Amino acid sequence: MFSFQTTVKLHNTDSAGLLFFAHQFKMAHDAYESWLDSIGLGFAKLFAERDFLLPIVHAEADFKTALAVGDRLTIELSVEEIGNSSFTLAYDIRTADDVVAGTAKTVHVCLDKVNRGSMPLPDDLRDALSQL
Amino acid sequence: MFSFQTTVKLHNTDSAGLLFFAHQFKMAHDAYESWLDSIGLGFAKLFAERDFLLPIVHAEADFKTALAVGDRLTIELSVEEIGNSSFTLAYDIRTADDVVAGTAKTVHVCLDKVNRGSMPLPDDLRDALSQL
Amino acid sequence: MFSFQTTVKLHNTDSAGLLFFAHQFKMAHDAYESWLDSIGLGFAKLFAERDFLLPIVHAEADFKTALAVGDRLTIELSVEEIGNSSFTLAYDIRTADDVVAGTAKTVHVCLDKVNRGSMPLPDDLRDALSQL
Amino acid sequence: MFSFQTTVKLHNTDSAGLLFFAHQFKMAHDAYESWLDSIGLGFAKLFAERDFLLPIVHAEADFKTALAVGDRLTIELSVEEIGNSSFTLAYDIRTADDVVAGTAKTVHVCLDKVNRGSMPLPDDLRDALSQL
Repeated sequence: MFSFQTTVKLHNTDSAGLLFFAHQFKMAHDAYESWLDSIGLGFAKLFAERDFLLPIVHAEADFKTALAVGDRLTIELSVEEIGNSSFTLAYDIRTADDVVAGTAKTVHVCLDKVNRGSMPLPDDLRDALSQL
Repeated sequence: MFSFQTTVKLHNTDSAGLLFFAHQFKMAHDAYESWLDSIGLGFAKLFAERDFLLPIVHAEADFKTALAVGDRLTIELSVEEIGNSSFTLAYDIRTADDVVAGTAKTVHVCLDKVNRGSMPLPDDLRDALSQL
Repeated sequence: MFSFQTTVKLHNTDSAGLLFFAHQFKMAHDAYESWLDSIGLGFAKLFAERDFLLPIVHAEADFKTALAVGDRLTIELSVEEIGNSSFTLAYDIRTADDVVAGTAKTVHVCLDKVNRGSMPLPDDLRDALSQL
Repeated sequence: MFSFQTTVKLHNTDSAGLLFFAHQFKMAHDAYESWLDSIGLGFAKLFAERDFLLPIVHAEADFKTALAVGDRLTIELSVEEIGNSSFTLAYDIRTADDVVAGTAKTVHVCLDKVNRGSMPLPDDLRDALSQL
């Protein structure tokens, strides 16, 4: 499991006074980016040095508790499934009171950067996922 | 069914060169807002004059075809389910070539603005949904 | 002058109940993108076929009147200055009542895509700017 | 001076491969929000307990160096001017190599929440600004 700290910023909210739902996906992705960085596979490196891309083919989220500007959140990232050329990540979004305010899932496929066909997950990514 | 036209803007893309996934949810919500306007229930009016809110409790999307800056899209909004105090909307995102590049769903609950408990869908909203 | 129609969407507002200031820059850029499309120099084409980039080196905006969700806006794009390898665009953001709710400016330089040095504006872009 | 750490996220970039200019304003505002929190005047508190708002009436930014996904930034917030009912903040955006990649300014006015007219800066905010 990987933990990521963030805070609901004013531009994450809307005039209903709460987090705009699509921003929960952004915050989940921020946690994913931070994890990629932590395993030496940050996007800057992926784009410059590696032969695969990891596009998201499915995403979903549940919104359980209203979140507002200034709320301090911990996003816990875990792996739900590792396939041959795909993987599924799960996110728990916890408030400072340790309430799960929301959850999310993202399904990623590994694509060959040149021909855009699916390819097996590279070993270093597979290893990192299996330890998540 | 309600149709909404939009174009992928530069700020909807990321440095992988394609639409950032969370922005598909934003574009779907833009279509929903446009439909609310068309039935006389735009958010400005809801916030000012009505006693209910319609927060999203679940959202999901599939990403089938890569979308890039400048792509002209038609988002077709339809209703999938109408409950007593909730409803589910479905979105097909079609390219200029009429390919379904992606889909989305959002589940909304009707909450009393004051006590934040669920309440039955108001009649005008229920009628408009049943005609969607 | 080029006119662009847009509507303040829920995700353009924040929990102060009004347009979040940075989104005025996004909306101005949407107008600029639409103008580029209209002169046959949309970003998809620029990225695929041309040898220059047009990064923004300065941007500024004034916020005169509060804007809220659902407000219908007309953004009027005009050119303020055309240099050898740069140009300045000006934006007036008008409400449905024809009030200038805000203004913006963006200064763009023309960079060679390969060596990233400045280069003279290409003739077709210069011509289009001079007619704006 | 107040320092704020951030990282360029994928959704801050666009398909030109670099930071989308408007997101520099968002990141500057994130620094401002973090400073407000640090002086006990975070937006959640302002909205719930105080009688003033601090809308931005002018914003500007210079973009000196291209920023890309994964770049770790330090935003240094300082005060440029304190008026009777307004103040101007300045932001230096520094890379990990201590290069100023960009700058920004925001001008804020203090408005009475009820009648929306300008009002003198409250003492605690003025004191905090004078120590910035």
